[in-house]
Amino acid sequence: MFIIDALQYSNWSEKIFREMNEGGITAVHVTICYHEDFQEMVQNVIAWNQRFEQFSQHIFHGLTSDDVRKADEEGRTAIFFGFQNCSPIEDNIGLVEVCHKLGVRFMQLSYNNQSLLAAGCYEVDDSGITRMGRQVIKEMNRVGLVVDMSHSANRSTLEAIEISERPIAITHANPSNWYDTLRNKSEDVLKSLAQSGGMLGFSMYPHHLKDKSDCQLEDFCGMIARTADMIGVERIGFGSDLCQDQPDTVVEWMRNGTWNREKDFGEGSASFTGFPEQPNWFKDNRDFNNILNCLRKTGFTEIEVERIAGLNWLEFFEKSFE
Amino acid sequence: MFIIDALQYSNWSEKIFREMNEGGITAVHVTICYHEDFQEMVQNVIAWNQRFEQFSQHIFHGLTSDDVRKADEEGRTAIFFGFQNCSPIEDNIGLVEVCHKLGVRFMQLSYNNQSLLAAGCYEVDDSGITRMGRQVIKEMNRVGLVVDMSHSANRSTLEAIEISERPIAITHANPSNWYDTLRNKSEDVLKSLAQSGGMLGFSMYPHHLKDKSDCQLEDFCGMIARTADMIGVERIGFGSDLCQDQPDTVVEWMRNGTWNREKDFGEGSASFTGFPEQPNWFKDNRDFNNILNCLRKTGFTEIEVERIAGLNWLEFFEKSFE
Repeated sequence: MFIIDALQYSNWSEKIFREMNEGGITAVHVTICYHEDFQEMVQNVIAWNQRFEQFSQHIFHGLTSDDVRKADEEGRTAIFFGFQNCSPIEDNIGLVEVCHKLGVRFMQLSYNNQSLLAAGCYEVDDSGITRMGRQVIKEMNRVGLVVDMSHSANRSTLEAIEISERPIAITHANPSNWYDTLRNKSEDVLKSLAQSGGMLGFSMYPHHLKDKSDCQLEDFCGMIARTADMIGVERIGFGSDLCQDQPDTVVEWMRNGTWNREKDFGEGSASFTGFPEQPNWFKDNRDFNNILNCLRKTGFTEIEVERIAGLNWLEFFEKSFE
Repeated sequence: MFIIDALQYSNWSEKIFREMNEGGITAVHVTICYHEDFQEMVQNVIAWNQRFEQFSQHIFHGLTSDDVRKADEEGRTAIFFGFQNCSPIEDNIGLVEVCHKLGVRFMQLSYNNQSLLAAGCYEVDDSGITRMGRQVIKEMNRVGLVVDMSHSANRSTLEAIEISERPIAITHANPSNWYDTLRNKSEDVLKSLAQSGGMLGFSMYPHHLKDKSDCQLEDFCGMIARTADMIGVERIGFGSDLCQDQPDTVVEWMRNGTWNREKDFGEGSASFTGFPEQPNWFKDNRDFNNILNCLRKTGFTEIEVERIAGLNWLEFFEKSFE
């Protein structure tokens, strides 16, 4: 069975890569940028290249859908690069192709705030995809870089779906009709996403879960079942947003970068600034089977479980990267 | 008499600096950035530092309002730095203070397109000042960097006026009730600007003039008189937008930077891509007297002419840079 996780940003280590293999994770979309500019992002590519060399028995750089099959055959995990922000392309559309050449396969058009391309979900208002954004989506379509709108605002997301000639992704979020928070997505966005052939990855990050760290697995799987009814079982997968072994300084940096002289608490609060605790049924890459078993109990057939686990993302990869 | 021009971007040369002195120009706000990032902008500062050394009999780096008086006494021209875009501060609010330390005194929050801070006047829609924009305005207020909204969109401009605790500037534009074009400003913007103590610099760039290159001086001065009636003679000055001796490749770069794979013609058109010809009454820095004489004929008193020529900008500099 293919298991594909469409978003992780952990404090990478041999332990985590071993857990990926133990959990049978075929492919992971890892974040290599939140706020980095081009040159800083390239440093992160270099760090990954070193990991690919050092931990080659566990992981390798995934570039195509065939690499998912290769990972499955070899019992390793294919690592696909993505950006949670468009900061690495700076104001230079030529960097889209360059980033794709470096092996990047996903790029969010904005991260919480307004970017040069689109509004983020924490902005008060959203004027949609910008002039540069329209150009960049066209260029991403041309080279095979997936538009990811996980942290973008509602109107910008709807416009990106409409403008993009390839299906887009929301790699890590949940429906707001289950848990209403700025990062989760409205029914109109999810329906539009699905109609255009796009994919939603369900997040297991506590701030996106009903009851947060106390969220019950059955409740989570019930939400998946209702979402499958709403947008189709072919349009859903996982995007755990797992941030394993990260110190709290990392989530502070994610939220504030260098744009702010005050302190923004994002999904947290002044009294709770750090990473939230993962629910007990999803602590690391070995826990996907908890979810898959619960999906079976929830009434999904085996082929449906396989679709959610990885086949849907695999099909999406097939039409997205080249 | 002080003559202050609140915007020029010429192909700088000894000839131009000599013409500034001959025209009696006390101070010029020069653009040192359209699309440059921080490091590229610093290169432009270095180029200016070399000019200050080489042409010290004509120009020096202006930092305070006292430098305007000094220039007047010495028969030289004080050069004040400004950005037409926020690209040099990248996504880093700490660079606001750094740029001020380098001697920058004006920064536009956006240049035609959406920026990280505000919408540009060529965007279809405008969601106002962004989350980062609110932080950056506060920081600009703190260090003494003037908010310039010349190329920004309507709502963003109104919000900048409201958010900024210091008066802001529209250094180079004309009222759209005289010539209606995206770059000129609506009555509500101009009235709000004036009420908050801000300044409008009248542009002599043909694309901002009624009848463009054929604009008549009397018509231009009549517009100034009506604008004085509308927002007060204390709130207006010059911001010529003079782009002397520039090749047409420069205006193409201004419009397209690196954000576009197609070709944007900005204020021009596919059949007219280059710099427009200046009106015959304003070709270079020696021609301000044409305008001042016409203002006298239009009915302005001598003190009013002096206010428009430079005293208003001088008063604005006094409360803006420190």
